[in-house]
Amino acid sequence: MSRGSSAGFDRHITIFSPEGRVYQVEYAFKAINSTNLTAVAVKGGETACVAVQKRVPDKLVVANSVTSVHTLTPNIGAVMVGMIPDSKFQVKRAQLEAAKWKYQNGCDMTADQLARRMADINQFYTQNAEMRSLGCAMLMIAYDEETGPQIYRIDPAGYFRGMRAVGLGVKQQAANSFLEKKFKKKSDFTYDETVQLALECLQSALGVDLKSGEVEVAVVTKSDTSFRKLADEAVDFHLNAIAERD
Amino acid sequence: MSRGSSAGFDRHITIFSPEGRVYQVEYAFKAINSTNLTAVAVKGGETACVAVQKRVPDKLVVANSVTSVHTLTPNIGAVMVGMIPDSKFQVKRAQLEAAKWKYQNGCDMTADQLARRMADINQFYTQNAEMRSLGCAMLMIAYDEETGPQIYRIDPAGYFRGMRAVGLGVKQQAANSFLEKKFKKKSDFTYDETVQLALECLQSALGVDLKSGEVEVAVVTKSDTSFRKLADEAVDFHLNAIAERD
Amino acid sequence: MSRGSSAGFDRHITIFSPEGRVYQVEYAFKAINSTNLTAVAVKGGETACVAVQKRVPDKLVVANSVTSVHTLTPNIGAVMVGMIPDSKFQVKRAQLEAAKWKYQNGCDMTADQLARRMADINQFYTQNAEMRSLGCAMLMIAYDEETGPQIYRIDPAGYFRGMRAVGLGVKQQAANSFLEKKFKKKSDFTYDETVQLALECLQSALGVDLKSGEVEVAVVTKSDTSFRKLADEAVDFHLNAIAERD
Amino acid sequence: MSRGSSAGFDRHITIFSPEGRVYQVEYAFKAINSTNLTAVAVKGGETACVAVQKRVPDKLVVANSVTSVHTLTPNIGAVMVGMIPDSKFQVKRAQLEAAKWKYQNGCDMTADQLARRMADINQFYTQNAEMRSLGCAMLMIAYDEETGPQIYRIDPAGYFRGMRAVGLGVKQQAANSFLEKKFKKKSDFTYDETVQLALECLQSALGVDLKSGEVEVAVVTKSDTSFRKLADEAVDFHLNAIAERD
Amino acid sequence: MSRGSSAGFDRHITIFSPEGRVYQVEYAFKAINSTNLTAVAVKGGETACVAVQKRVPDKLVVANSVTSVHTLTPNIGAVMVGMIPDSKFQVKRAQLEAAKWKYQNGCDMTADQLARRMADINQFYTQNAEMRSLGCAMLMIAYDEETGPQIYRIDPAGYFRGMRAVGLGVKQQAANSFLEKKFKKKSDFTYDETVQLALECLQSALGVDLKSGEVEVAVVTKSDTSFRKLADEAVDFHLNAIAERD
Amino acid sequence: MSRGSSAGFDRHITIFSPEGRVYQVEYAFKAINSTNLTAVAVKGGETACVAVQKRVPDKLVVANSVTSVHTLTPNIGAVMVGMIPDSKFQVKRAQLEAAKWKYQNGCDMTADQLARRMADINQFYTQNAEMRSLGCAMLMIAYDEETGPQIYRIDPAGYFRGMRAVGLGVKQQAANSFLEKKFKKKSDFTYDETVQLALECLQSALGVDLKSGEVEVAVVTKSDTSFRKLADEAVDFHLNAIAERD
Amino acid sequence: MSRGSSAGFDRHITIFSPEGRVYQVEYAFKAINSTNLTAVAVKGGETACVAVQKRVPDKLVVANSVTSVHTLTPNIGAVMVGMIPDSKFQVKRAQLEAAKWKYQNGCDMTADQLARRMADINQFYTQNAEMRSLGCAMLMIAYDEETGPQIYRIDPAGYFRGMRAVGLGVKQQAANSFLEKKFKKKSDFTYDETVQLALECLQSALGVDLKSGEVEVAVVTKSDTSFRKLADEAVDFHLNAIAERD
Repeated sequence: MSRGSSAGFDRHITIFSPEGRVYQVEYAFKAINSTNLTAVAVKGGETACVAVQKRVPDKLVVANSVTSVHTLTPNIGAVMVGMIPDSKFQVKRAQLEAAKWKYQNGCDMTADQLARRMADINQFYTQNAEMRSLGCAMLMIAYDEETGPQIYRIDPAGYFRGMRAVGLGVKQQAANSFLEKKFKKKSDFTYDETVQLALECLQSALGVDLKSGEVEVAVVTKSDTSFRKLADEAVDFHLNAIAERD
Repeated sequence: MSRGSSAGFDRHITIFSPEGRVYQVEYAFKAINSTNLTAVAVKGGETACVAVQKRVPDKLVVANSVTSVHTLTPNIGAVMVGMIPDSKFQVKRAQLEAAKWKYQNGCDMTADQLARRMADINQFYTQNAEMRSLGCAMLMIAYDEETGPQIYRIDPAGYFRGMRAVGLGVKQQAANSFLEKKFKKKSDFTYDETVQLALECLQSALGVDLKSGEVEVAVVTKSDTSFRKLADEAVDFHLNAIAERD
Repeated sequence: MSRGSSAGFDRHITIFSPEGRVYQVEYAFKAINSTNLTAVAVKGGETACVAVQKRVPDKLVVANSVTSVHTLTPNIGAVMVGMIPDSKFQVKRAQLEAAKWKYQNGCDMTADQLARRMADINQFYTQNAEMRSLGCAMLMIAYDEETGPQIYRIDPAGYFRGMRAVGLGVKQQAANSFLEKKFKKKSDFTYDETVQLALECLQSALGVDLKSGEVEVAVVTKSDTSFRKLADEAVDFHLNAIAERD
Repeated sequence: MSRGSSAGFDRHITIFSPEGRVYQVEYAFKAINSTNLTAVAVKGGETACVAVQKRVPDKLVVANSVTSVHTLTPNIGAVMVGMIPDSKFQVKRAQLEAAKWKYQNGCDMTADQLARRMADINQFYTQNAEMRSLGCAMLMIAYDEETGPQIYRIDPAGYFRGMRAVGLGVKQQAANSFLEKKFKKKSDFTYDETVQLALECLQSALGVDLKSGEVEVAVVTKSDTSFRKLADEAVDFHLNAIAERD
Repeated sequence: MSRGSSAGFDRHITIFSPEGRVYQVEYAFKAINSTNLTAVAVKGGETACVAVQKRVPDKLVVANSVTSVHTLTPNIGAVMVGMIPDSKFQVKRAQLEAAKWKYQNGCDMTADQLARRMADINQFYTQNAEMRSLGCAMLMIAYDEETGPQIYRIDPAGYFRGMRAVGLGVKQQAANSFLEKKFKKKSDFTYDETVQLALECLQSALGVDLKSGEVEVAVVTKSDTSFRKLADEAVDFHLNAIAERD
Repeated sequence: MSRGSSAGFDRHITIFSPEGRVYQVEYAFKAINSTNLTAVAVKGGETACVAVQKRVPDKLVVANSVTSVHTLTPNIGAVMVGMIPDSKFQVKRAQLEAAKWKYQNGCDMTADQLARRMADINQFYTQNAEMRSLGCAMLMIAYDEETGPQIYRIDPAGYFRGMRAVGLGVKQQAANSFLEKKFKKKSDFTYDETVQLALECLQSALGVDLKSGEVEVAVVTKSDTSFRKLADEAVDFHLNAIAERD
Repeated sequence: MSRGSSAGFDRHITIFSPEGRVYQVEYAFKAINSTNLTAVAVKGGETACVAVQKRVPDKLVVANSVTSVHTLTPNIGAVMVGMIPDSKFQVKRAQLEAAKWKYQNGCDMTADQLARRMADINQFYTQNAEMRSLGCAMLMIAYDEETGPQIYRIDPAGYFRGMRAVGLGVKQQAANSFLEKKFKKKSDFTYDETVQLALECLQSALGVDLKSGEVEVAVVTKSDTSFRKLADEAVDFHLNAIAERD
């Protein structure tokens, strides 16, 4: 996009350009890549898995205080990519929305409902001038009793999509190409296949071999619908399995 | 429209240009085409049918999570064309308006009343500076016990129109020309004729043959006034009927 | 008006130019002609009649959903010319004002009171920065028990006028010239004369012969003060009478 | 005033220019002349009289719906010159202020109190950014039991003045010169002298002979303190008396 | 002050220029001279006197409706110089503040307290963006049982000063020079000396001999602390005494 | 500072420049010197003393109405330097804050608490866009039972500092240099030494010999913790002592 | 960053630039270095220690009124670096948040919760236009019964990080490099090692030998979880130990 074509339409939060674009929302998408991370989510037969790069800025940071993986409810979790304070703001909002729903309705909010709600909130930021859009995007996973494993992608424009697999962040295009090829051949992956596909995809998109400390993996499964991170040992196991397979 | 003629009148949400135009509303119309979709609605003797292109962005998206067809009340439905988050925002608002009406009046809101209300809300966005207009338009269908099948078209400027048939989106002009020719000859279409006319029109306007996964079709009929999507098999049946007829 | 002379005074809703003009209001008048329609109202001895062009944008539109004639109370009606969503917004407001008055005072609001109120609301939009003026004008008719038939013209600047006859819209000057000539000769028209004068004036101003589907006519009379549209047959009757007379 | 000297200080409602001027208020004065009318008020010994041009825009307007003369309370009346919707807005406000006063204090608001109040409201518009000043000015007359006939002039800047006689509008300077000459010689005019002086002044300032349909005259007198318009016959009587005298 | 140096800092109500100046307040001071009047206040041993030019704009104005002298409470009065509507606004506010104080505290507000309060309100206008500063200044006089006669000068910047004597308005510098010379020689003036000094000062500053109709004089004294205007005869007496003395 | 470097960042109340500066606050500091005064505070063993220039603008001003010394509570006082209306505004706020504290907590607010509170309020003005910063600074003194004499300096940026001695205003740098030299040698000054050091410092910084009418001195001491101004005789005594010592 | 690339996107508080950056937040980071201070925090086995330069602006300042060390709750403390009024504002807010939490939940807020909350508040300033971001950053330390000593770094963008050690301020890069080298070799420092490492790091980063009056040190330990500053003697002891070791 050339600067000339925006001509001042990009300095107000919520106005259309003559081409019908809302520039401030488009700029918010740029902010998603500001932390230079990539995440991948894969849905198997009875598993949803999300894997995301972990890059501890320096050795002095307490490693386990750096995470892109957030529990929204006991059974719904998300990986956030983009500006970290905005990510935390959105995670907190999601937790509050889910808690409020439960309090008001006496039952758990489903991942579908929560994803929809978070997307609605993002849409509102694009229409109303009070607050800017958030510079982050969300990959949400959960296991639904009726429909099985779920992946949702929610972005600053207010879109949300149910996905079979998806990449997010700097290398999302490479990740998506990788995933599309794999899903052409097969889709009813086992638990191990699902986790390893996510990790393999991340390694392929980044062009590097990851170590257990450089990646965070979280899963939900039919047998255990709670959202949980894999321990480093488990991640190592899967990384080794991939390496041995090659 | 040349940029020169707008001269700054297009950067405020709700002011008139010297020619009496409200530019921001005109730009919102551009946003309707941003998703590059076309929809068609056709009214038969006892049927209203709406058909809309379905384009799943990539293979990784869960196909049935991509839809332009929305149920507003059990008996009123709509196809949305334009910015997807704005579309969902408007659908939600329509659902709330209808629910509120029912709660307050103890009877169902008619499609006519709901269309009027949604158009009023859109008009308000064009007059009040707080929120921008929505970058989407709506084709609403319903079956009214007294007046039979109904089609309403609601746009960002706050217009709404009862229609006998109508196209909406990128190829709406081609669709409208096609429909006008057909309606010159006949208008009291049977159920099958109505659905097939909608599909035929869409294929004609787009210049392609559609497959059942590439189009969504929803109907209301005298015998069953509930708003419902056709299953892929039913769509296939009608697409085949069209193909055989040619 | 040359652009140079406005010099930025026209981009704020409610400021005066050095010549004491409020440009945004003047631009709103331009919007009245945006739908390219003309209306005529004529007051006879015991009749008030309003006639307005009807132009169905295309064949696909349900013809009877396109109307410029609106019932405000059982006994007061109006023709709106200008931006259609703004027109509907104003009609709704007028209906609410009249209903509120009746609820609060236990008697009907007279056309004079309602016209005054709508004009006051329009004046407020010109003075207060919150909302823009409406791009439409109103011809209101009613039959007052004491003062007989009434015509009021209400415009975006907040003016309202009692009229003996008046044109509104693109061809209002031609219509007014026609009416002035007729009223010089006579004014106590019978019912038929009144309706036919309105239709004749419209045909003269537009320079075309109208058909019953191309014009809407509404009346109030001493014998039946309710505001009502004429059926196409009645319109045909009067159009034929005019044609035969010539 | 040259445009250069205002240099942007005239585009905000309530800021001072470096010379200590509030331009928007000065521009409001220009709007007083936008209707091209002139009014005159004259105070006699026991009479206050106000006369104002009446110009029915065209023959189609119901002549008696066009008036610049407004009753504010049974005993206080005013002539408004300037933008008509603004005039009506101010008249309504004056009526409300007087009614509120009576309700709260149990006695009538005097003309002096009402004039002061309306001027205060105008001053507020010049200091507060919310609403623009009104493009109209007011000549108020009343008969005070203690101080006799009263004339007040209230303008958009918030000034009000008790006057012995005064012109307002396009030809106010000519009217004032005429009045000053007359008042040098005499001031304790009789009823007839007062009314005829007002009419004579108006004719002199305008340079035309007026007919009874072209002027509105209203009076208050010691013997009848109610504010009332003169009938056309009465106006004719006085116009003839002037003509015969010459 | 050159325009260049203000560079846009003067178009917002409450921002500092790089030199720490608030331009809008400085411009308000210019507005004080817009009515081209001068006032003088003098404090004697047991008298405070204020004299101000009276200029009736034209012969048609009711002379006694033109006054710069205002009673704030029975014992506190003020002369206002500057924009007349702003002056009246401030007088009204002062009356309200004094009345509110009395209601809340059960005793009279002293001139010192009232002057302080009015200055505080003016300061607030310079700090808060909602309303512009007032284009007028106030000379307040009163007799305090403990401290004797009092003069306070309150200006648009929010300053207030107790004064022994002071000029205000177009010729304030000439008046102040005159007063300083006189006060060097003597200060415990008698009643007659006080009044005549004020009048003499005004005549000297203006360079003209005043007549009783061209000046307003108000006093408070130990023997009668009520604020009162001198009758024209009394003013004449003092003007003659000055003339004879010379 | 060159204008170029601020580049528009100085025209909004609360934004950062690219160098992390808030220009409007820096300009407020310029306003402190607008009255061209200097103040000095000195802390001795059991005494805190503050001395400030007094410059009566002209002879006509009631000398004792001009003061920079303000009592905030019976035991806390302050000298204000800068725009006088802003100074009075801040003094009033401080008095209110202290009174509110006492009412809410049943005990006196300490000088430390009050200084902290006033600084917090100033900080808020720098962060929030509603009101500009105040163009004045405060030297507060008090005697604390536990920690002895106290001096606090509070400025428009929201800083406050406990000081052993400090200058404020146009000549604050000269005053501070003088004080630093003195405090290097000794700090446990007696009452007389404290007062005389403050006066000597002021004379040295200004380069003139002061007379008792040209300076205001206020003190708090262990034996009498009430904040009090010294009478002119007392000031004379100390000025003479300094003169004799030299 | 070149000025050209910001192109006006940096003059509004909360908009994105085309690259997805929020400039005003970046400028706030510049303000952290405006006081030219550096702080260091180090976590040992059972100790968290924070050391920060102390620079008394001049001799006249009461040395112990200058501090960057603030107690937030009895067990949580923080060092603030950046604009001092903003720092105090944030400290006060943190104290209020912790107090409110305790009141509402009946238990102490943990350092983790408090750090998270303060970061959330900072994030909000970056998204909402009402208030600017704060020009300061915070190093918080506390001892958690479960997880041992804690260090958190909170910045104006809304980031917070758990750290093993960290530098903040002008020389933070030098400090971080020093700390990283040390932590490569060892991390389970004793109390003395922890304190001395912090001091040694600060000396190394600044390139000077510090004296006890030039540095503030605060600690929490397992045996005494209360947040406390070290006395000058204790600081001297550790500075000597470092000097002797070298």
